Amino acid sequence: SRSYNITLLPGDGIGPEVIAESVKVLDAVSEKAGFSLNYTEQNAGGAAIDAHSDPMPDSVVETCKKSDAVLLGAVGGPKWDELTGAMRPESGLLKIRKELGAFANLRPVTVPESLAENSPLRPETVAGLDLFTVRELTGGIYFGEPRGTEGEGDEKKSWNTMVYSVAEIKRVARVAFEWARKRRNKVTSVDKANVLDVSRLWRDTVIELHAAEYSDVELDHLYIDNAAMQMVVNPRQFDVILTGNIFGDILSDASATLGGSLGLLPSASVGGPVGIFEPVHGSAPDIAGQGKANPFAMILSAAMMLDTLNESDAANAIRAGVDKVLADGYRSGDLWKEGNTLASTTELGDLVKDAA
Amino acid sequence: SRSYNITLLPGDGIGPEVIAESVKVLDAVSEKAGFSLNYTEQNAGGAAIDAHSDPMPDSVVETCKKSDAVLLGAVGGPKWDELTGAMRPESGLLKIRKELGAFANLRPVTVPESLAENSPLRPETVAGLDLFTVRELTGGIYFGEPRGTEGEGDEKKSWNTMVYSVAEIKRVARVAFEWARKRRNKVTSVDKANVLDVSRLWRDTVIELHAAEYSDVELDHLYIDNAAMQMVVNPRQFDVILTGNIFGDILSDASATLGGSLGLLPSASVGGPVGIFEPVHGSAPDIAGQGKANPFAMILSAAMMLDTLNESDAANAIRAGVDKVLADGYRSGDLWKEGNTLASTTELGDLVKDAA
Ligand SMILES: CC(C)[C@H](C(=O)O)[C@@H](O)C(=O)O
Ligand SMILES: CC(C)[C@H](C(=O)O)[C@@H](O)C(=O)O
Repeated sequence: SRSYNITLLPGDGIGPEVIAESVKVLDAVSEKAGFSLNYTEQNAGGAAIDAHSDPMPDSVVETCKKSDAVLLGAVGGPKWDELTGAMRPESGLLKIRKELGAFANLRPVTVPESLAENSPLRPETVAGLDLFTVRELTGGIYFGEPRGTEGEGDEKKSWNTMVYSVAEIKRVARVAFEWARKRRNKVTSVDKANVLDVSRLWRDTVIELHAAEYSDVELDHLYIDNAAMQMVVNPRQFDVILTGNIFGDILSDASATLGGSLGLLPSASVGGPVGIFEPVHGSAPDIAGQGKANPFAMILSAAMMLDTLNESDAANAIRAGVDKVLADGYRSGDLWKEGNTLASTTELGDLVKDAA
Repeated sequence: SRSYNITLLPGDGIGPEVIAESVKVLDAVSEKAGFSLNYTEQNAGGAAIDAHSDPMPDSVVETCKKSDAVLLGAVGGPKWDELTGAMRPESGLLKIRKELGAFANLRPVTVPESLAENSPLRPETVAGLDLFTVRELTGGIYFGEPRGTEGEGDEKKSWNTMVYSVAEIKRVARVAFEWARKRRNKVTSVDKANVLDVSRLWRDTVIELHAAEYSDVELDHLYIDNAAMQMVVNPRQFDVILTGNIFGDILSDASATLGGSLGLLPSASVGGPVGIFEPVHGSAPDIAGQGKANPFAMILSAAMMLDTLNESDAANAIRAGVDKVLADGYRSGDLWKEGNTLASTTELGDLVKDAA
């Protein structure tokens, strides 16, 4: 029977708590669907700094490479805030993305009518929102060479390089066009082509690929500054957003505010042989260990993992379970309103497990 | 008696219309305050491409350099959209900023209680908002070398360099700290120091300057992705935002949405011998020539110009005039609501002139 090896990287803060709930739910749906999941747990981020003086030891990378998928909780926290460079928890994150060739970061954001009241925007602007960002994740200014520092005193300077090749742009653009075909058939490519050479190549490449292979998909282009405006003024105009690494970092975080809580937002980093699935929220050290964390983002990330493993029935069961628990009024503190039932991290995991 | 030479660059679209209203108002307040303004009008952007095949001819730059200040309307429009590189209207804008050494772009955003209803955010989140972005404008990835394109086919790649020196960071940080002292005494510096070398230098330099010269000002640091979130979730936490060229482009445009119309937002680009004062909105070709443009952003940019020329009484008179006209309920279409009086571009200019 079908079986998959999953590497668990709980990481820091609330990471371990939400990972535990996602495993609980995964075990339930996989049993029903007739496949099995074998877990290997490893340290990452601050936990790995503490244990191995390295936020992403090579041995952990090797374990990830040998598995079918990686579930990641969250990394970082005040304990490691004074560290710099390669010793920072975030460096571990960048390393595992790069090592696994996870060049496409997928970030769906939906705001069901029932949750529109939680939005910082007017409910009528966001109710029914359903957008999907495809962010390039292993190139651009995050990894571009040369980078460095030189000189002394006032002359000292530091630099990074924002660089993309046609091949890098095409492969991530394909991911966006393919998703658009499964959704509302529209891609908005975001760049700064009026100023940057690298954005000019980005735009030209997207236009060419579109003409050659995806002319059935509606395509338009926005400058990043305008896209950041549109995200606040009229976010429902978007279906699939395609953009580079740093612009995607900024824009997808802006989009993540629209539902009023990060606690529901999953992500998947795919494109290589092994995908990484993690919630959009961070390690939230202020509420760690108190049973207050919202496990839905992690549980929904596990559903994205199952999609990628072609276990869509189980994935859909998870999503239906989360929807039911929300519809029944159960909420963690981040989403709780008068009339809801406040529930702990483990209670919410149990409820989803039973409903899935 | 005091007299100033002003270069007018009306540019494209609604640029000439709003420039005309700002001149009308300037003439009125300068006469009352006892100084005179001499104007020289020149082409810029698309208009200059049409007239001189160059979006910012050297002769125009020379005129600007010899004047005391530059008032710019807006550049660009569909007519010039197919042009690339140095022939684009935007290149003219970048050139004049660089040539005038205007390294600090100042973008105040206020949302008076009376206009909070126009915000895409919940009125209670933005009412009373008063933030001020100081964006570095003549460095960073906009101008960094090397930049270029190389290779063929899938191997073709393009790149830009995000680079800052300590001297560049210090001079713009000083501007932010000085403004903070005149305001609510808080600076939020925005960077991506967890990923970029250039941001690490940015943060270290800001911290050092703060400790040495501005320790009376409250200082904190946000990553750009988090700042983009905070701009939507809790914008009133900000007083002065200090950031680099591209991050400032994105973040200040996000902040510009909060009042519900760009039509009220001025900007000033200063630091060199001659400042540039322009509205945040663009050339709005769709409404050009119809008397529909909101002239307030341009008129308030002219007020910022007077501040810089140390004519604060006249500057304050303009701002008081705009406030009165708004309080009296006159609005252009972008801000009009049931109960307001719809007024044309020239009517609004006349009203402010009379009220100032
Ligand atoms: C932690 C940080 C390095 C990371 C990024 O910038 O990619 C995070 O913001 C994200 O978006 O996953
Ligand atoms: C038109 C463009 C080049 C410009 C910029 O990116 O600086 C504009 O967006 C602005 O912010 O003034």
